[in-house]
Amino acid sequence: MSSLDTVISDLVIANRILAKEDVVDAYGHVSMRHPDNPKRFFLSRSLAPELVERDDIVEHDLEGLPVKDEKRSLYLERFIHAGIYAARPDVMAVVHAHAEDILPFGIAKATPLKPVIHSGSFIGAEVPVWDIADRFGDTNVLVTNMDQARDLAKCLGGNNVALMRGHGFASAARSLIEVVRMSVYLPRNARALLRAKQLGGEIKYLSQGEIDARNRGYSPYSTETWRAWEFWATKAGCNHMLTRPDGGHVHGQKK
Amino acid sequence: MSSLDTVISDLVIANRILAKEDVVDAYGHVSMRHPDNPKRFFLSRSLAPELVERDDIVEHDLEGLPVKDEKRSLYLERFIHAGIYAARPDVMAVVHAHAEDILPFGIAKATPLKPVIHSGSFIGAEVPVWDIADRFGDTNVLVTNMDQARDLAKCLGGNNVALMRGHGFASAARSLIEVVRMSVYLPRNARALLRAKQLGGEIKYLSQGEIDARNRGYSPYSTETWRAWEFWATKAGCNHMLTRPDGGHVHGQKK
Amino acid sequence: MSSLDTVISDLVIANRILAKEDVVDAYGHVSMRHPDNPKRFFLSRSLAPELVERDDIVEHDLEGLPVKDEKRSLYLERFIHAGIYAARPDVMAVVHAHAEDILPFGIAKATPLKPVIHSGSFIGAEVPVWDIADRFGDTNVLVTNMDQARDLAKCLGGNNVALMRGHGFASAARSLIEVVRMSVYLPRNARALLRAKQLGGEIKYLSQGEIDARNRGYSPYSTETWRAWEFWATKAGCNHMLTRPDGGHVHGQKK
Amino acid sequence: MSSLDTVISDLVIANRILAKEDVVDAYGHVSMRHPDNPKRFFLSRSLAPELVERDDIVEHDLEGLPVKDEKRSLYLERFIHAGIYAARPDVMAVVHAHAEDILPFGIAKATPLKPVIHSGSFIGAEVPVWDIADRFGDTNVLVTNMDQARDLAKCLGGNNVALMRGHGFASAARSLIEVVRMSVYLPRNARALLRAKQLGGEIKYLSQGEIDARNRGYSPYSTETWRAWEFWATKAGCNHMLTRPDGGHVHGQKK
Repeated sequence: MSSLDTVISDLVIANRILAKEDVVDAYGHVSMRHPDNPKRFFLSRSLAPELVERDDIVEHDLEGLPVKDEKRSLYLERFIHAGIYAARPDVMAVVHAHAEDILPFGIAKATPLKPVIHSGSFIGAEVPVWDIADRFGDTNVLVTNMDQARDLAKCLGGNNVALMRGHGFASAARSLIEVVRMSVYLPRNARALLRAKQLGGEIKYLSQGEIDARNRGYSPYSTETWRAWEFWATKAGCNHMLTRPDGGHVHGQKK
Repeated sequence: MSSLDTVISDLVIANRILAKEDVVDAYGHVSMRHPDNPKRFFLSRSLAPELVERDDIVEHDLEGLPVKDEKRSLYLERFIHAGIYAARPDVMAVVHAHAEDILPFGIAKATPLKPVIHSGSFIGAEVPVWDIADRFGDTNVLVTNMDQARDLAKCLGGNNVALMRGHGFASAARSLIEVVRMSVYLPRNARALLRAKQLGGEIKYLSQGEIDARNRGYSPYSTETWRAWEFWATKAGCNHMLTRPDGGHVHGQKK
Repeated sequence: MSSLDTVISDLVIANRILAKEDVVDAYGHVSMRHPDNPKRFFLSRSLAPELVERDDIVEHDLEGLPVKDEKRSLYLERFIHAGIYAARPDVMAVVHAHAEDILPFGIAKATPLKPVIHSGSFIGAEVPVWDIADRFGDTNVLVTNMDQARDLAKCLGGNNVALMRGHGFASAARSLIEVVRMSVYLPRNARALLRAKQLGGEIKYLSQGEIDARNRGYSPYSTETWRAWEFWATKAGCNHMLTRPDGGHVHGQKK
Repeated sequence: MSSLDTVISDLVIANRILAKEDVVDAYGHVSMRHPDNPKRFFLSRSLAPELVERDDIVEHDLEGLPVKDEKRSLYLERFIHAGIYAARPDVMAVVHAHAEDILPFGIAKATPLKPVIHSGSFIGAEVPVWDIADRFGDTNVLVTNMDQARDLAKCLGGNNVALMRGHGFASAARSLIEVVRMSVYLPRNARALLRAKQLGGEIKYLSQGEIDARNRGYSPYSTETWRAWEFWATKAGCNHMLTRPDGGHVHGQKK
């Protein structure tokens, strides 16, 4: 397969993983920046992620518009992706979702969401909360234009995740595999923190040094990262679509 | 298919979705007003919603009685539907269920259930709690006659959802798709609020302006609404029964 | 089928339902009194309930001993059943299980478990907590002889459910269908009460009059009771084993 | 099968059970000491436990190094196993995992995790919390060398389980079946304790005498222990791989 074919397949896999791991339901989406053109990104047309196939992937520009003539409906909130790619040249993949267990942290602002478990370290030391009402007043709470998207991207700043009050989160990473992993473990970190608070007493968060050490060790195709991607894809029924970047053998595929 | 055939199929799909999404179990039901005769509504005979098929749908009048001679047992609580349709000409579909995560809000009256997440906005700014004991004293807690049903409908008033103390909820909407969506996200909103309260501090609810903005944007066959209906129906094994009102193509069906 | 054949089949179905509904796992058991001989009861040999088949059912006497020569291992805690049948002539079926969500109420004795939802009414107004240590000191916490079983039955008294501290519960009812239904809704009632307490403020329990009214209306083969039994058996893959006591048609079976 | 063949099969089964019972996901691992050579142990190569097959099992020495030439990647944290086997001659099997519901007890140190339910008794009266930062400062929180592993083993001491702050747990037992059972019920015990604390008031823990009595009664191939192993293996799709040490019949296998 060509590199672009692999990108599209990987994006389909990412959609299915996020659905299987309960990060998205009928709503929520994941995108990937065009590997050869930083002013473009790939995102499904408006469809539940579990149902996304290769033909559903649409190329968008950094204003959130489809690059080619497109008759099919697009995600109302595709601007989230455009806004983040425009503001953050380092970001190669973006997820927006409403994973249930992060919602309380956007509603009850007294408790900041921070990493408490090693698999949550990738969310970074600070997770800002963006409240659309702060600048846009009473809206339908969705990010439906570039103005709102740019404001969200500004709140995200150099962080990896921003919570969106009463709505969900946006996460951004250097690779598709990383943004999927971060989005899967984000709700787990949220649950661990909520329950630790229920137990009471002092909470021990990951230190900045621990977060940095984990970040330094990250590589999108390391054995450890690939292990999760391969496992999740297999669970989601996409084993046959997996491609190793090094052309190596994929567990469960015929040699 | 004729319009009525579609209504019946849609109602079967709604039953299966509510079962799959854990809103109903062996108990709970969903109905739809007759599109051509506002004094009639369709509701399954007494059967667990997951098992409902087209032949199980029975036409009822606004006293909760079957329109035709009917030997099969009917739901004891069919009066809930009759009472709400009689009181609310704007309502086209009704759900009654016992979804577990809304129950605490009917039992611990100190905390009103209000929308805190965008998908919960459709429950409306106020969710009254109806206590059957207030007017009917010690009963089996079920709504088994029109007197009780009219009292419940009165408590519901112009709202979209009423909690029923120690029992469940009744929800009412302008379309079948809307009442299903509201009933699926109602427990999610309840969980988000419960957990936000566990985190402590001030809770940020959706504002009245946000609720209104979301409501204005709602259309039962918009791309976004259809996306959830199509996804849930597919998950519930009913993809083949889906019909688009515009005759358009349904994802997963042969063209 | 003869009446006894039906009893055995129903008991297999009950085992499978309790497994599917997460009331039992590898451990826990359900029994039924012999319909023609009140000094005997039927209970599986030592086996995870999900795996129980007709041939695994063993007839026991009221000392917990197998009536016929039996080489297969029996449940260590079969005495629970013997003790309750001996003490309570009105009881026709017994469940012992460790359903997770009732456990906190046996450990934190400050909060009594009481019915707060209509489907929980059958547990009765009082649910005593039996602590094996009170009379037997340091044991392995299991009920492994008739002395312990009689003590548990004494604590149960005329109630329907007794919690067993640090262990689980025993429930007793007038029919197999009733004991299964009670055991399925017992954890749900426990969760609703736990969460209502988390919301804070006054809790509204079912009144004694409501519990009595629901109890009066109960019949093991009413349409409403059968609806759940049929649904649960179908979910658990046992639809083909269902028999209606009136010989009527079972949903999903060929006519 | 030879004894070693059975060991390998049992270890594959253990991997699959831990995955099915949600103790491990893409990460986490289980090992078994070589039955004939106490200086060796078996552990999968780096792979999600649900995907492990016989050929993936690799023999390691007590420094965490593969005994034979091995080109495939190994688990980064295999040292945990080596460290515990080296320090504890009585231990025959080890699990390391990140089961979600034990995490809060490693983060909020005010509440020690102790057994409150009979199936949790095997974790022992004390569950120490090991914080890698105490001796190693800012790391990536993983146990990636023998120094760290020895420190963890020292903290574990003569106990059965050590929590690892912000990371997971390590459990050690006299047999593979026991370490799996302990690891399955550890999160359940954690949930029961967390919820009991939410109910408030005094918590009744298992007494030391109860823990001792349960421990004395344990045998890895007793009817009761085998019952769970057989059931879990069947649920995990491994029934065909089961072997009884006494050569007896396995439920569900052809005679």
